[in-house]
Amino acid sequence: MKLIHHIAELRTWREANPHVALVPTMGNLHEGHLHLVNLARQHAEHVAVSIFVNPLQFGPTEDFTRYPRTLERDADKLRECGVDLLFAPDVSQILPATPRCQIALPALANQLCGATRPGHFVGVATIVLKLFNLVQPDIACFGKKDYQQLSIIRMMVEDFNVPIEIIAGETQRAADGLALSSRNQYLTPDERARAPQLFQQLQLITHLAQQADANVSQLEQNAWQTLAEAGWQPDYIQIRNRHLAEPTPQDQQLVVVGAARLGNTRLIDNLEFSRQPA
Amino acid sequence: MKLIHHIAELRTWREANPHVALVPTMGNLHEGHLHLVNLARQHAEHVAVSIFVNPLQFGPTEDFTRYPRTLERDADKLRECGVDLLFAPDVSQILPATPRCQIALPALANQLCGATRPGHFVGVATIVLKLFNLVQPDIACFGKKDYQQLSIIRMMVEDFNVPIEIIAGETQRAADGLALSSRNQYLTPDERARAPQLFQQLQLITHLAQQADANVSQLEQNAWQTLAEAGWQPDYIQIRNRHLAEPTPQDQQLVVVGAARLGNTRLIDNLEFSRQPA
Repeated sequence: MKLIHHIAELRTWREANPHVALVPTMGNLHEGHLHLVNLARQHAEHVAVSIFVNPLQFGPTEDFTRYPRTLERDADKLRECGVDLLFAPDVSQILPATPRCQIALPALANQLCGATRPGHFVGVATIVLKLFNLVQPDIACFGKKDYQQLSIIRMMVEDFNVPIEIIAGETQRAADGLALSSRNQYLTPDERARAPQLFQQLQLITHLAQQADANVSQLEQNAWQTLAEAGWQPDYIQIRNRHLAEPTPQDQQLVVVGAARLGNTRLIDNLEFSRQPA
Repeated sequence: MKLIHHIAELRTWREANPHVALVPTMGNLHEGHLHLVNLARQHAEHVAVSIFVNPLQFGPTEDFTRYPRTLERDADKLRECGVDLLFAPDVSQILPATPRCQIALPALANQLCGATRPGHFVGVATIVLKLFNLVQPDIACFGKKDYQQLSIIRMMVEDFNVPIEIIAGETQRAADGLALSSRNQYLTPDERARAPQLFQQLQLITHLAQQADANVSQLEQNAWQTLAEAGWQPDYIQIRNRHLAEPTPQDQQLVVVGAARLGNTRLIDNLEFSRQPA
């Protein structure tokens, strides 16, 4: 595996290595990331992983400085997976000066996670576009765990005609159902034991929402209530269509997305489901 | 020369034709465009020209519908110049639905031409980024006549790490000095005779601004006054550095940019110059 920190070296590597699939990450890799690496390998000759903790996507009160940085351990894992390139640039390589041009996103970027994290998705989209232009992959893999991020990146790729195929990886889960996330390590043992409750509520919703007489907003409220009574601070629990628009009665392909805080840790999860035509 | 209207066909052409220089245009081609085509040929194996009258860059009161569309004549000219590809998509190919993602630009986009054409440069940058991703050229050529457009595109390419080299073509002029522009044909014979006055004022400024005791803002005001007295409606006459920032006393590489309306036609022009260190 080649470890590259500088853009000039990356451009040289890319010229010599055609047909690349990229897995953009912020490092602190877990099985969810490695699942994306394996997915990438199924779709391209060469697999590149980027590790960049993107300051633009953290709010001023968020965990940018304490976000876990574990480059050596990450590199070992990727080497074991047979990754061809690890691109791990410094902030100065990617954001040399005050940002001038950014991506302007539609209303979706200010809903769901965007409602409590202003500027988050603009920061994500701007850096992802830069990484796309730097690595120039044929394919890029993103996890469904960050469903809104995936939707916005798909939108950006489509709207700007970016010549990259986006492939989504299924959310990887612990045995008790908790979606794998770098932020799980912030949980106390007690919180970790209760953390699967979020996924359990999403499962319950997908089960009940398939019934013909389901009252969608009532289901959302019930889940919210249950989590609040169990000591969570729910942020949102919403049923949307697969583009994260408000579903119409005709929409059969849906997803329930949820975010809630447990102690100091904000967890997100989602679950795709289908329902019968109305 | 291959004439392509559809994106799918363009992608196929691109795969078979490596090393491409692109000249993006809105058609109605004149010697200024053909100069860019020749410049493109000096830098790449294949030359592609796009013709797309971009609705996003016209304001509601501007000349989008009456902008001259002369595809057959343009294609003949490009064929004579030995262009390899003419990409002339319909609006529906490039803007299939309501725009969602756009480019967000820094303050420069709202100054100079941007001050009286709100949204103009966002429209330009968004479509240019799409054309870049569609044609995927190694090189793209833009004329210095649209100096602010050139600056903003350079900025976007740098900020998003777009893997394209931007090459600037010198402004082409009529024998009397008037910068070539598709909009010159809107001028009445009398206006056409007076039109070189804008360039003459810019030349005068570059001459006088090189003197050690030059009062820059006085020079700008004098030119404005002279044009106004000659029946123009000046929009701006400004000396800037080559990045179009307000010049500091240390800046030696400068440009004077001007825009003024003659009758119903808005003309722009500029002239680069150097001055001695302060």
